[in-house]
Amino acid sequence: MNTSEFRRRGKEMVDYVADYMEGIEGRQVYPDVEPGYLRPLIPDSAPQEPDTFEDIINDIEKIIMPGVTHWHSPYFFAYFPTASSYPAMLADMLCGAIGCIGFSWAASPACTELETVMMDWLGKMLELPKAFLTENAGEGGGVIQGSASEATLVALLAARTKAIHRLQAASPELTQAAIMEKLVAYSSDQVVATLGTTTCCSFDNLLEVGPICNKEDMWLHVDAAYAGSAFICPEFRHLLNGVEFADSFNFNPHKWLLVNFDCSAMWVKKRSDLTGAFRLDPTYLKHSHQDSGLITDYRHWQIPLGRRFRSLKMWFVFRMYGVKGLQAYIRKHVQLSHEFESLVLQDPRFEICAEVTLGLVCFRLKGSNKVNEALLQRINSAKKIHLVPCHLRDKFVLRFAICSRTVESAHVQRAWEHIKELADDVLRAERE
Amino acid sequence: MNTSEFRRRGKEMVDYVADYMEGIEGRQVYPDVEPGYLRPLIPDSAPQEPDTFEDIINDIEKIIMPGVTHWHSPYFFAYFPTASSYPAMLADMLCGAIGCIGFSWAASPACTELETVMMDWLGKMLELPKAFLTENAGEGGGVIQGSASEATLVALLAARTKAIHRLQAASPELTQAAIMEKLVAYSSDQVVATLGTTTCCSFDNLLEVGPICNKEDMWLHVDAAYAGSAFICPEFRHLLNGVEFADSFNFNPHKWLLVNFDCSAMWVKKRSDLTGAFRLDPTYLKHSHQDSGLITDYRHWQIPLGRRFRSLKMWFVFRMYGVKGLQAYIRKHVQLSHEFESLVLQDPRFEICAEVTLGLVCFRLKGSNKVNEALLQRINSAKKIHLVPCHLRDKFVLRFAICSRTVESAHVQRAWEHIKELADDVLRAERE
Repeated sequence: MNTSEFRRRGKEMVDYVADYMEGIEGRQVYPDVEPGYLRPLIPDSAPQEPDTFEDIINDIEKIIMPGVTHWHSPYFFAYFPTASSYPAMLADMLCGAIGCIGFSWAASPACTELETVMMDWLGKMLELPKAFLTENAGEGGGVIQGSASEATLVALLAARTKAIHRLQAASPELTQAAIMEKLVAYSSDQVVATLGTTTCCSFDNLLEVGPICNKEDMWLHVDAAYAGSAFICPEFRHLLNGVEFADSFNFNPHKWLLVNFDCSAMWVKKRSDLTGAFRLDPTYLKHSHQDSGLITDYRHWQIPLGRRFRSLKMWFVFRMYGVKGLQAYIRKHVQLSHEFESLVLQDPRFEICAEVTLGLVCFRLKGSNKVNEALLQRINSAKKIHLVPCHLRDKFVLRFAICSRTVESAHVQRAWEHIKELADDVLRAERE
Repeated sequence: MNTSEFRRRGKEMVDYVADYMEGIEGRQVYPDVEPGYLRPLIPDSAPQEPDTFEDIINDIEKIIMPGVTHWHSPYFFAYFPTASSYPAMLADMLCGAIGCIGFSWAASPACTELETVMMDWLGKMLELPKAFLTENAGEGGGVIQGSASEATLVALLAARTKAIHRLQAASPELTQAAIMEKLVAYSSDQVVATLGTTTCCSFDNLLEVGPICNKEDMWLHVDAAYAGSAFICPEFRHLLNGVEFADSFNFNPHKWLLVNFDCSAMWVKKRSDLTGAFRLDPTYLKHSHQDSGLITDYRHWQIPLGRRFRSLKMWFVFRMYGVKGLQAYIRKHVQLSHEFESLVLQDPRFEICAEVTLGLVCFRLKGSNKVNEALLQRINSAKKIHLVPCHLRDKFVLRFAICSRTVESAHVQRAWEHIKELADDVLRAERE
């Protein structure tokens, strides 16, 4: 495909994407396909000669779309949101074209420097303590990871390296195995200190756990993967109180801040804790500025060597929405979840199972797990909306998460009417 | 930004991308900026009110491009190639729009199933042993990782879990620390068994190391991050001989197979070795098909929980190039590296430092490291081409890697003329 064909096909793809987004409400949110549906629909090996673009674009509706769960449908209330916005998509096109691999400053200075500044912008939106920012030439700083899992792993490995060095310095006679035996990682039943758990969006109290960690010289990593985006609103910022005790903190703008996956924002108070654990310096990656103290080589901050120019997405989204636009977006979702909560509370057959703080409502039919399992089964078989369950203290609970960028009150109302009707069926079937 | 504005801006961005690609040869391959150049050019916090798209697109040329190292310039010969093709960019636009997170089959069946089939397609292109493929309902299979580093880490953790289980079964009285002390990972001076090292593209002999690993019941992971793409050509396939002894194998289509970053292809002989190490089953990720044995939940195969619909890129690229088109692409790059090699050999002042097998030429001026460091310094200061060095047995060596999709013989000839001229200067300066 040459450049002039790309101009044509690229514009067709823009229209396909726009059509998809505009028409997504009309698509069934969860697919009808059974496991193994796809393999028989396509050849069993790659073609020797090129296929045409028409062949491929036709196959999207024929082969791919029937097997897609439409995460951006306004009837998708499952898991947690995954971000989707037009500014982020435009930035991703640019990111793909520049196509640099930003493992060092020299590999593309703009890639590294925009990331550092965007992480400062975002840190300020959250009112993170200054110690986490780069701008004042302190010891802290931010980095984009691929996922919260990677951020947690990076924090864990940095903490481990730091603890090993401390033990080795204090007791040089210890063998490696003896040191390993002394290492302990504490976690809650949702792992690490969490602000907004996946099951029910509960919050650990950092003001309690933080001082203990600091006193005992223990690394404190705080994960706010979903909830973190809400902290840009002053009325939710108090949920982050105590982050000043943390060594590292992360949340996922790719969940709820309109920056398409992947973009997990991680800050550390001491950059050298990360670079001490991950430093990698082969000759082919050395460059003249690296020992100047002026630059950041992000490969020392993460597991992979390669990295895309992901900060472009943040830059486009932050600028095209503005902080106020982003706050309005968060508030709208929170308002919709409270709207759903009040609908549930009006029906005495149902109960709310956890405090509704942000965009997640955990609810169930009063009664057995069996009846709730039956209700969820009916909901997801009808495929008009899509939910997933969780367990809260042995209770089977339905999670209603406000997800789509385009979800409105009307969708929430329709979803609730639908759930009530299915509940009627379930309860009737139970009585019979 | 609403959908109709996206239609307009998306098409403008397609043209911007096409213009960038068409004009890339005219841009200086390595930027002039100094560390810290970007921060003063942009505000120190995100705007409260939205900026316009025009503001942003203007800032790309003003702020971003001056700091970009142009990896896709035909004068970029540094590191290794990173893939860039129009079909992959089109697929990425679609991937961004669908925006599903494919952690389980149910989270988007098409995302999981296309990946499985594409990994079979690619495995067959490489003539991988059948044990690594999924199609025959065997125990093996393929997965897309983000990077070779992640693939190696996943292999290491799977190997570790397997070894721990074996030791625990054999000697139930061993403490955890005692088990840890017994674990050993062997590596060469380039880490794990490697086909095509980064420094000089050398190859480990799998036919020697493989049988030993199998006999000793040791996990063998083979990394062919760069070189793997070449194995789709029958004349290079012999370099992969012995992969039948491996437990896991990976290479990066995002390097040399025209599938834009990130796309690291990993296969294992026994899926259960991975899923045994990484299994994660909270209630909110359970779905009705998961215990049917019919489906794949890729979250058990990797470090992160989330994953994009990356197989779309493979599908578009494999179909729009065809196997023959991909082979022609590899062969052209190999031919260009041999052309450069022969130019070097014609100049008695220079020497070739490692066998030229694929697209990398390691060369140097006969003489001291100092004179070669001076030559590289002049090359990268002139910024007409971009190279990085390596060390081969204490010798400072220049790496000339064929990288760009659009590089032609004329660029290689011009690069060599330029290097010779700078060598004249360096040698003259040395005599003076």
